[in-house]
Amino acid sequence: MKLLRVGTAGRERPALLDPDGTLRDLSGLVTDIDGTLLADEHALGRIRSAAEAGDLPALDATGLRTGPPLARIGKIVCIGLNYHDHARETGAEPPSEPVIFFKAPDTVVGPDDTVLVPRGSVKTDWEVELAVVIGRTARYLESAEDGLAHVAGYAVAHDVSERAFQIERGGTWDKGKNCETFNPLGPWLVTADEVPDPQNLSLRLWVNGELKQDGTTAEQIFPVGEVVRYVSQFMTLYPGDVINTGTPAGVAMGHPEPKPYLRAGDVVELEVTGLGRQRQVLAQA
Amino acid sequence: MKLLRVGTAGRERPALLDPDGTLRDLSGLVTDIDGTLLADEHALGRIRSAAEAGDLPALDATGLRTGPPLARIGKIVCIGLNYHDHARETGAEPPSEPVIFFKAPDTVVGPDDTVLVPRGSVKTDWEVELAVVIGRTARYLESAEDGLAHVAGYAVAHDVSERAFQIERGGTWDKGKNCETFNPLGPWLVTADEVPDPQNLSLRLWVNGELKQDGTTAEQIFPVGEVVRYVSQFMTLYPGDVINTGTPAGVAMGHPEPKPYLRAGDVVELEVTGLGRQRQVLAQA
Repeated sequence: MKLLRVGTAGRERPALLDPDGTLRDLSGLVTDIDGTLLADEHALGRIRSAAEAGDLPALDATGLRTGPPLARIGKIVCIGLNYHDHARETGAEPPSEPVIFFKAPDTVVGPDDTVLVPRGSVKTDWEVELAVVIGRTARYLESAEDGLAHVAGYAVAHDVSERAFQIERGGTWDKGKNCETFNPLGPWLVTADEVPDPQNLSLRLWVNGELKQDGTTAEQIFPVGEVVRYVSQFMTLYPGDVINTGTPAGVAMGHPEPKPYLRAGDVVELEVTGLGRQRQVLAQA
Repeated sequence: MKLLRVGTAGRERPALLDPDGTLRDLSGLVTDIDGTLLADEHALGRIRSAAEAGDLPALDATGLRTGPPLARIGKIVCIGLNYHDHARETGAEPPSEPVIFFKAPDTVVGPDDTVLVPRGSVKTDWEVELAVVIGRTARYLESAEDGLAHVAGYAVAHDVSERAFQIERGGTWDKGKNCETFNPLGPWLVTADEVPDPQNLSLRLWVNGELKQDGTTAEQIFPVGEVVRYVSQFMTLYPGDVINTGTPAGVAMGHPEPKPYLRAGDVVELEVTGLGRQRQVLAQA
């Protein structure tokens, strides 16, 4: 199923995108799309049954904003340098175990919302990523298979990054990853049953129409199930938590000088196979 | 005012500790103690008026658990190496600007709840800290004075840390800061009007009755108002966000070998002037 949330920011209603492209209202069936829903097999089953029975009212999509497809995100764990090609372009050794950093849930915006270049920023960069949404509490998991079994679904994430804040200002990467609007998410939360092989997805990102990233999750150093298993050794993952699993090559930082960092007015578009497409216009904070 | 939340985990009710030590029930007046309440001057005023008028029913504190004094925390920003004496003991240069890392809100437990030594941990360490609770949205603040004006109150925080996970496992410090139960908070959220000088507070921590940390916020490299101003340049702070402002000298990592890291059965007690006292028994995860 393709779950989404539509409406003005902070007042989105839950919806479903039919296989035929019709938007269906879920607000009569569930209050929102969040960790509580994802952990509730019965509630998900009710949505599935209602969709199959044709019981869900259609929604007019005209002029309707798409919000992030998940409410009340608990935490966003991010995996750094998780693609062989991206590690090479940044000049870093491929890590021997996953690199973890965080984005605060308040950085999340809808897939087509404005992204703000922070004040004082000269190195705002793009990163298309596969986001993993947790559906069951994951704690000290023993295998990658078990890791995959704790995934409720997938989404496109844009891990917007300010490289000077991230690398040149002391301390950890978090400083360049948590500016407001720095995590567009969606359009859809696609349930795991519709993503049979998360290691065979194409990720693409364009800036002002020019293809910048063209990667595949086959290049991930640590695949999704292993990432979930690994993270669960250091922290407990709860339903509604998100893992951004890293970006492939092609970010601005990996370009020769002068590096084409983002500025107000730039347009970024990104997509992952089967998970939909985002489009953001940059503006100055 | 000393605000707190009492009751079983996840079902706490809001309460007030009277100047005479009587526990007062706030559940007839407000639904919970969270960012929404802290941003609402009228609601805080109603609590203050009711307390002064003697209108709040007493609560029997016997056998009542104290939970964390703040619900629905948005994010916990942590400042690393923010005390001259702690930077010295770790062998680090005092940072030229604040070091930022994150703890997930799901690491927060009550001040006297059990703290779990993670599986595989051999370097679980203690850190007594002054926690700052944000009361107004803080974005690109221009002065430390303005930073202080965005603080709703203060609390004791225990920034439990696993040093091997933090330092020896690649990537950022977050890996050793986000194990479950790693952020005891409270007992009270003390409103800022009762803390006239946050740079003149003693912080103390004992392990099994032995004094290990005995510091003062006067040793902070970046004082509270400056920390809030600084952080607001990199991310927006919202009501109900928390900043852990760093720990003074005396952590296990700063001891000579063999360093006295925490084990199941150890008892940690900590306090900050005017903000109350915590006591945790360690157990194995």
